[in-house]
Amino acid sequence: MPRYCFQLQVRPDRMTEYVERHRTVWPEMQAALRATGWRNYSLFLRSDGLLIGYVESDDLAASQAAMEALDVNTRWQASMAPFFEGTTPTDGFPLLTEVFHLSEDPLEKTS
Amino acid sequence: MPRYCFQLQVRPDRMTEYVERHRTVWPEMQAALRATGWRNYSLFLRSDGLLIGYVESDDLAASQAAMEALDVNTRWQASMAPFFEGTTPTDGFPLLTEVFHLSEDPLEKTS
Repeated sequence: MPRYCFQLQVRPDRMTEYVERHRTVWPEMQAALRATGWRNYSLFLRSDGLLIGYVESDDLAASQAAMEALDVNTRWQASMAPFFEGTTPTDGFPLLTEVFHLSEDPLEKTS
Repeated sequence: MPRYCFQLQVRPDRMTEYVERHRTVWPEMQAALRATGWRNYSLFLRSDGLLIGYVESDDLAASQAAMEALDVNTRWQASMAPFFEGTTPTDGFPLLTEVFHLSEDPLEKTS
């Protein structure tokens, strides 16, 4: 399954509250992510607010489009937008490029 | 299994070669990573050289220490050190903090 890494910027003065909100992500938001193909999805925060997302999906563009069509996502993103500087999740997820992946199978070629 | 995200900085003028080297990571280096507990390990690069690592490990500190004891790692890191600005992998991996993980099980509490 393809792996994706994206980055956003959380406002440094709102980081504590951002973290707190993510301790209790709405169950229906989590269910929507699962239903639209988001797998092994984690968010990581650097002390200056750099936010890194890691997610596996058969087709991230399709998973994103499916989320955007859901009311629960619209409500969640509206509640989260004030926490971001610049690009917000509704603007899109700026992706980094995967340059290495360690294959599990020693006999499988890793690229 | 715990998930970890770290960041380093690749010299922008060496990015192309850095990417090229990671298309052909030595098989013995890949075997060493597997043997020391590095799982689902990926590297992602931003256009300005920000390098994000994502890895799963039962105990990343132990996995790192086990790698540092191996000659193949010493040789690999020596060959890679000139590609980095500031912190190199032998100095350590500056970690970001996981603030969210989407559990696979809808009935499992996500924190």
